[in-house]
Amino acid sequence: MKIAVFGYGNIGRAAEQAVKKAKDMELVGVFHHDEMVTLLAEKPDVVLLCTPTREVPVCAPLFLKAGICTVDSFDIHNDICKLRAQLSPVAEQYKAVSVISAGWDPGSDSVIRVMMHALVPEGQLFTNFGPGRSMGHSVAAKAIPGVKDALSMTLPAGEGRHNRHVYIELEEGYEFEKVKEAILHDDYFAHDYTEVERVDSVAKLDTHQHGVHIERNGMSGITPNQQVDFTMRINNPALTGQMMVSCARAAVRMHDRQQFGSFTTVELAPIDLLPGEREDLIAHLV
Amino acid sequence: MKIAVFGYGNIGRAAEQAVKKAKDMELVGVFHHDEMVTLLAEKPDVVLLCTPTREVPVCAPLFLKAGICTVDSFDIHNDICKLRAQLSPVAEQYKAVSVISAGWDPGSDSVIRVMMHALVPEGQLFTNFGPGRSMGHSVAAKAIPGVKDALSMTLPAGEGRHNRHVYIELEEGYEFEKVKEAILHDDYFAHDYTEVERVDSVAKLDTHQHGVHIERNGMSGITPNQQVDFTMRINNPALTGQMMVSCARAAVRMHDRQQFGSFTTVELAPIDLLPGEREDLIAHLV
Repeated sequence: MKIAVFGYGNIGRAAEQAVKKAKDMELVGVFHHDEMVTLLAEKPDVVLLCTPTREVPVCAPLFLKAGICTVDSFDIHNDICKLRAQLSPVAEQYKAVSVISAGWDPGSDSVIRVMMHALVPEGQLFTNFGPGRSMGHSVAAKAIPGVKDALSMTLPAGEGRHNRHVYIELEEGYEFEKVKEAILHDDYFAHDYTEVERVDSVAKLDTHQHGVHIERNGMSGITPNQQVDFTMRINNPALTGQMMVSCARAAVRMHDRQQFGSFTTVELAPIDLLPGEREDLIAHLV
Repeated sequence: MKIAVFGYGNIGRAAEQAVKKAKDMELVGVFHHDEMVTLLAEKPDVVLLCTPTREVPVCAPLFLKAGICTVDSFDIHNDICKLRAQLSPVAEQYKAVSVISAGWDPGSDSVIRVMMHALVPEGQLFTNFGPGRSMGHSVAAKAIPGVKDALSMTLPAGEGRHNRHVYIELEEGYEFEKVKEAILHDDYFAHDYTEVERVDSVAKLDTHQHGVHIERNGMSGITPNQQVDFTMRINNPALTGQMMVSCARAAVRMHDRQQFGSFTTVELAPIDLLPGEREDLIAHLV
């Protein structure tokens, strides 16, 4: 299967590496925004949309309308249904498959949450992120006047709640206490316990390590105290890029079966994510 | 959807309870082997096969040929592909869906293993069971002359290896040391480190608590040390029964979409396991 990478930030680089490692895939190229025509001429089976998340609703239809499948890691949880409703008719009309929100959360974590509900229909589920860098919160902090660079760490505080630790480099001529207050009153931070710390170099502290702990405790049938836990400690872009590549495989397989439309990860058969013959995979992994 | 339970041991009872709790399901009855005709007359959408695992290949076709979907928790890992190959043409011919090996291992654990491979294609995966009762090993120990009752506990020994602790009640007139030697030389136990202990009452020690820890560490793309862990501490029959009931829902949905055949859990879209509308589930869980 021929795969193209569109957009070349952290996730684009990780996706490129994962495609190169996949023996059933051929990388037709890594493309920037101004290379759309070149990309289309390569006729890839799938384009991995590694653009900023807000560009996905604009970019995806351009490829789908050319009959090319897309995979994105759109991560605005509240807008996933809207994106799916927007892309599904386009994908159906042009006989393509769009796999959306195919990173780790949303993405693989979504599959874990669904499985936990299937096993334990009643109970409490908590998704605890971190410790790790929040892309969204780091960008929000950086947008505050006086902030030269920022890193917002997400720290799990139990039961799905999170504290935030924001490291900032200060612009010259700004007062730390005032900038700190501005951050604490920003809507991104106002709802969580947040600490702001001034550092000489944010770059030195930055890391792509992240993690999640998803926990569910509840009832299977009428039996209580069923405990199910899922934990990851991972490099964030590497996992996102890899999951997108695995989902590209599922997109091609659904395309071959003429199952067109837009799908979230929980709508894919997990086995379609893996290379190889279905019977071999069942024999080894089921 | 109308659900029948066939077979009424520990799993049958748990499945019955889970069906009764499911608001989108109606329990048409619990049936023993001699009530096959009564069961068929009820025209259920799905029969949950809660018989001993070796009876599944014999029982499943009887229902599939009547156009009734089946769900089983067939757990002989080496024979899953064979069962699927046997049941799939029958299910296809009679327009039914068979979901096989739909307990927790094989079953939900299989989905976890596949997801771990999708996220981390290269590396080591270990499935560590227990501490908990092994049904197969308990039955094997009980079959040894001189053993009145037996309970074989599976104890995780790291990296997917397991030790066994066998509690036995001795028949009168037998010598413990000789019975112990017979157990240790039985093929079920000869390959693992095994301890045999004589007790007054096996029943007092028995529990349905079980657990599993699935761990994978490896590479996403070219990035090493990606750590993914899944752990459960659960009541064994309750989880098995619940997973079968969730898979019955998937069977009905695939039947409605005319996707006939025999499927393992990793071939199902996880979202099909849950009650409710797809868009609502995506909005809340993805």
